[in-house]
Amino acid sequence: MNACIQLAHGGGGTLMQQLIDQELRCLYNDPEQVLHDAARLERPPGLLAFSTDSYVVQPLEFCGGDIGSLAITGTANDLAMAGARPLHLSVALILEEGLPLELLRRLVASMAASARSCGVAIRTGDTKVVERGKGDGIFITTSGIGVVEAPNAIDPLAIQAGDQILVSGDLGRHGLAIMAARHGLDLQPPVASDCAPLWPLVEQLLAAQVQLHCLRDLTRGGLASALQELAQARGLEFKIENKQLPVLEAVARSCELLGFDPLHLANEGRFVAVLPPQHLERALALLAPLGGRHIGEVREGPGRVLLRTEFGTERLLLPLSGELLPRIC
Amino acid sequence: MNACIQLAHGGGGTLMQQLIDQELRCLYNDPEQVLHDAARLERPPGLLAFSTDSYVVQPLEFCGGDIGSLAITGTANDLAMAGARPLHLSVALILEEGLPLELLRRLVASMAASARSCGVAIRTGDTKVVERGKGDGIFITTSGIGVVEAPNAIDPLAIQAGDQILVSGDLGRHGLAIMAARHGLDLQPPVASDCAPLWPLVEQLLAAQVQLHCLRDLTRGGLASALQELAQARGLEFKIENKQLPVLEAVARSCELLGFDPLHLANEGRFVAVLPPQHLERALALLAPLGGRHIGEVREGPGRVLLRTEFGTERLLLPLSGELLPRIC
Repeated sequence: MNACIQLAHGGGGTLMQQLIDQELRCLYNDPEQVLHDAARLERPPGLLAFSTDSYVVQPLEFCGGDIGSLAITGTANDLAMAGARPLHLSVALILEEGLPLELLRRLVASMAASARSCGVAIRTGDTKVVERGKGDGIFITTSGIGVVEAPNAIDPLAIQAGDQILVSGDLGRHGLAIMAARHGLDLQPPVASDCAPLWPLVEQLLAAQVQLHCLRDLTRGGLASALQELAQARGLEFKIENKQLPVLEAVARSCELLGFDPLHLANEGRFVAVLPPQHLERALALLAPLGGRHIGEVREGPGRVLLRTEFGTERLLLPLSGELLPRIC
Repeated sequence: MNACIQLAHGGGGTLMQQLIDQELRCLYNDPEQVLHDAARLERPPGLLAFSTDSYVVQPLEFCGGDIGSLAITGTANDLAMAGARPLHLSVALILEEGLPLELLRRLVASMAASARSCGVAIRTGDTKVVERGKGDGIFITTSGIGVVEAPNAIDPLAIQAGDQILVSGDLGRHGLAIMAARHGLDLQPPVASDCAPLWPLVEQLLAAQVQLHCLRDLTRGGLASALQELAQARGLEFKIENKQLPVLEAVARSCELLGFDPLHLANEGRFVAVLPPQHLERALALLAPLGGRHIGEVREGPGRVLLRTEFGTERLLLPLSGELLPRIC
């Protein structure tokens, strides 16, 4: 087989069958399933969660991850944010003609390893090839099915005045890692993406009977966009303490140098949790050892986010209108 | 809002929120769901089927359909081919910077209409934007969940020697319609894609208690590739009567002119069914009025497809190795 992807690899003929057999079969939990266009699944007991994301990150490989690990972890994380245990994943590839097979192999291995670490099975997939110059190496779209284990609906509309707001760990690493890889910046010390599965931590919170009103992962747009979306959806005011926001020294320093706000940078292994005050202590006991923090609270007021600075002044925390860093995930 | 997609529409900020609110919200069955990255679904009663496909067809609009109708119908059809009633769909968009909003609106309307005609609800979605020259207008990845209604496993491995082979309608129209649109061919009479939902017909077959050993839609690679895949997967010989293959006069004529074999052309609303001989008559009673035909049978022998010509000779029906027409779906 040629060492690069050819257009004919997408044609539905023997070359495509070869590509699937030799390079992609290892992804699937049950290789027999490759015979079908649809997987048959045992019916899970409970409400289902269903999510999808396309991944177009550039560069394809970066410190702490690659588009493959991102595509698996990101969709599994979207399910976890609905209080659902991720179970089944689909993987659809759009390959650009000329993609080196060596690179495809690394990304496939990375997807398989990430699926294992997320506890999900890849059940079905698809492969298309587009001409050189009509794609960008590889785009990956994953969809996931999970089973909801949270006893109550985890939902922006469940947020109440008086609720407490936590983040699960330090902020801004994924965005900075992509930025460094894209522009060949030699950050010292190097900053690795925080890309990681979120379900294990959500599972622990649920096992400790922490009632979760809302969860949101802090991807595109970072903490600022996530908080703004939630405050606006619910029509309540979020008050955040700037000095409580966990940002690594190395990240803060690079952000200052580059003119970024870590609150706008994407994360791939972090979430914000909004929960009733009486559950705060139990939640913090689980989150704090991993770098999580209690960052603020919800109160009656307009749907907006107020950031209290170290000087005691307050300012509106606004989401970006557009793009800080395109193609971050 | 600007009349074209900008990179910033993919950034997770207010511009992206506007795009979703103003252009995409109408896709969703339950607009509240747009607040979440994962949809919560009622658990359907029965085994689930799960499928995904990326759609990269060019041109984006063609006689009889567009990339939107194809993306909805195609994934719903993959579920139907597993004997499953399509229920829930996800839609992930990869937009190229500069895509005219007018075109996006037409495609979104077409997706919404196709979802209605397939009886599926679009539950969750995602939108990414890539720079000009890194995509090709729009790529759409849909994933689907269905509930299996067939009483037995519909599977290549269920095929038996003695089984009869049927196609559900005339062959080659989708491939020819794409070809004509791509190269500005003015076919007389015009040939429209056969793009159509397959579940209604499968449902009728099941209701008539027709036992289905295997179903396969005839997309990339056409009838030839589908039959070859099934014969090889099961290790049995398929014998096909050339004179039984339904090809419209207009399609046959254009194929001859252009040097194509209609058996290699993609279809988007046709399937092959393999079933026990005692169920043939009941199946034909449903398929024949729609142009379906009894085209051959399965017998002991090597995993291959033999085509008996009008002259009584036999030849191997081979799938293409690569590409007849790239980016057909």
